[in-house]
Amino acid sequence: MSDCAASEPVRLAERLNHVETSAIRELFKLLGKPGIISFAGGFPDAALFDVDGIREATLAALDSQAGAALQYGATEGLDALREQLAAFMAGKGARDVTATDLIVTTGSQQALDLIGKALISPGDKVIVEAPTFLATIQCFKLYGAELITVPVDDQGADVEALERLIAQHRPKFVYLIPTFGNPSGAQMSLERRRRVLELAVRTRTLVVEDDPYGDLYFDVPPPPSLLALSHEVPGGRACLVHCGSLSKVLSPGLRIGWMVAPPLLLAKATMCKQFSDAHTSTFAQATAAQYLASGRMPATLQRVRGIYAQRAAAMVQALQQTLGAAIDFVPPRGGLFVWARLTGAGGGPTDAVALAQRAIAHGVAFVPGAPFFARDPDVATLRLSFATVDEERIREGVRRLAAALHG
Amino acid sequence: MSDCAASEPVRLAERLNHVETSAIRELFKLLGKPGIISFAGGFPDAALFDVDGIREATLAALDSQAGAALQYGATEGLDALREQLAAFMAGKGARDVTATDLIVTTGSQQALDLIGKALISPGDKVIVEAPTFLATIQCFKLYGAELITVPVDDQGADVEALERLIAQHRPKFVYLIPTFGNPSGAQMSLERRRRVLELAVRTRTLVVEDDPYGDLYFDVPPPPSLLALSHEVPGGRACLVHCGSLSKVLSPGLRIGWMVAPPLLLAKATMCKQFSDAHTSTFAQATAAQYLASGRMPATLQRVRGIYAQRAAAMVQALQQTLGAAIDFVPPRGGLFVWARLTGAGGGPTDAVALAQRAIAHGVAFVPGAPFFARDPDVATLRLSFATVDEERIREGVRRLAAALHG
Repeated sequence: MSDCAASEPVRLAERLNHVETSAIRELFKLLGKPGIISFAGGFPDAALFDVDGIREATLAALDSQAGAALQYGATEGLDALREQLAAFMAGKGARDVTATDLIVTTGSQQALDLIGKALISPGDKVIVEAPTFLATIQCFKLYGAELITVPVDDQGADVEALERLIAQHRPKFVYLIPTFGNPSGAQMSLERRRRVLELAVRTRTLVVEDDPYGDLYFDVPPPPSLLALSHEVPGGRACLVHCGSLSKVLSPGLRIGWMVAPPLLLAKATMCKQFSDAHTSTFAQATAAQYLASGRMPATLQRVRGIYAQRAAAMVQALQQTLGAAIDFVPPRGGLFVWARLTGAGGGPTDAVALAQRAIAHGVAFVPGAPFFARDPDVATLRLSFATVDEERIREGVRRLAAALHG
Repeated sequence: MSDCAASEPVRLAERLNHVETSAIRELFKLLGKPGIISFAGGFPDAALFDVDGIREATLAALDSQAGAALQYGATEGLDALREQLAAFMAGKGARDVTATDLIVTTGSQQALDLIGKALISPGDKVIVEAPTFLATIQCFKLYGAELITVPVDDQGADVEALERLIAQHRPKFVYLIPTFGNPSGAQMSLERRRRVLELAVRTRTLVVEDDPYGDLYFDVPPPPSLLALSHEVPGGRACLVHCGSLSKVLSPGLRIGWMVAPPLLLAKATMCKQFSDAHTSTFAQATAAQYLASGRMPATLQRVRGIYAQRAAAMVQALQQTLGAAIDFVPPRGGLFVWARLTGAGGGPTDAVALAQRAIAHGVAFVPGAPFFARDPDVATLRLSFATVDEERIREGVRRLAAALHG
């Protein structure tokens, strides 16, 4: 077909000039190499999926409501699922959220897309964390956003810096992953969460809270989400969008996310969704609704948390023992990732992009951190996922990483 | 929540100024009235869904490949489904299309969205049929397209008019529903299909063929799709995008559509999809792949075609006998719709919007045709769907329509 490509009468939209196929996507093509240990993934372990529970749920959906599960549905989502999702969030402290305060989205990626479509005009400014989720950067850039970055430390986004940036840039909105963010793994402190909400109300700034990882804590639960806290801050809810997902806790393949937003924005996002994909698969929605109704979720969460906690501990210990001062990181308290920085101690490398290539030659893969920065990339950073690798392989992978570091 | 709405710190994107919540959506809210006979729907009859076949398919998918069906997948779609879809199209004459020439989309609505995202810059011109699918109009407008309309008669789009419009406007692309289009129901002739392809090649104009209804013929199959014909016209494939869907023939709830496009555009649409919803539900994709592999589709299609043919015949006969000269229409040869025009004969009404309101008072609903025109609406037109109503109720509905006409 290559001769055809040259002759396509295709004139692309101007917005495509803002994005490129991701560097990570190119890296992933190398992962097919046999025997490689991959810390590069951003996905949960398929071996932990509750296949039996999902099978029962889909059979229940087809038996009790085949029409609804297979027919077109409302753009907002199936009522049964919206009610289950409201109840799921209520169980995590967001007690004043009702089914009509949310819409179902095709994964939380679509929530980001709808936020972009409904809010971003070319040239608009949006504040994101440095680092932040790569697909968020690309998604918002595709709508023409100019991204401004706020630094993140182990307590989450720096709220004082955020206040200055809001005053300086008057962004359309601020996008945060306050809990075990991808890639930072950071957990924003309760105090900073309160300050973010107060800042949003005071400066009349919309804040988008992306929360796909909050359920994956290892030991103690994280502080309440901005959504759960918002009832403590008068006016907070009107300034807040909250994106949730079943992808990390149940199954990404269902593509079930959701979005809580104030009424005007929710209506406009729904209209945008109507012309994006009409609605999320009712087949997947009905299955997810039956699963949540079945009562299996708490046990599923407990099991998944336990296993990821063990793997995280194994990775943290192996990194500390094997790499020592060559890398610096804060042990994660949840999520799927260790976010680390090459220190250069002892004359070791400080370029994670170069190290990633060398690591693959040594049989281990990770993702360099630079692409996660919307601007001013820190090339010494890297993201290591422990989610899909068992403890023995984690230790072996870290040994290979050490060999790459020293080779 | 209304007091909150006023205080949302939401500044919407400029692109939202181009679209409104559809008039049809407002009309649909009235359909809850008990006892109403609805010819207003645009969807297939849920009673015809092959629930047993879909149940078997999803169980097969979970038993044989639970990981793939529940995990993240490639943005392009599951290979197994792409191969089945290529084979499905080969069975309809598109013999040179391979799995890698297409991507899976979240319903064909998403294919339209990706085409808009990848191709339309604000102010770009796009040619569509008058009338055309309402959600296409809104989808392209949201990306800032200026829509130009080409007239449609019972042989499909007027190709001579199309040639003049292409020369005058140099559109980014032309969007056509050549087979049993929504709402026109028209079937483009074989001769016009050839001329469209030749015109596309000669003028180097991209043509988008939307084909969700082509399988739903009543008697003889329609002429080959533009895609199937394109190998007869040198350079044709490089000028052609083809959108397919399982929604009308298997189940809309799965949200399985696909898009065949030349390589550069397919790559760019895939990139856009990555940031729209990452990928289409692998759970739904694996189910659809198993269904197509099961060999049940031909029998399903035959059954669905037979029932829609009977309903269409019942509606055509009832309209002719009961309304006579008051309306004018071409009996459809496939699809879900009768597209008609109020003639005003005998002093009857010619405003279908006013008639639609009166019809609901008489216990029957249809959709006025005006919103399906991207410009210069013909307010005398209306769309009647026979798909979800049995023959006796169709006759009763047409009697009610007559009462509304004369009342």
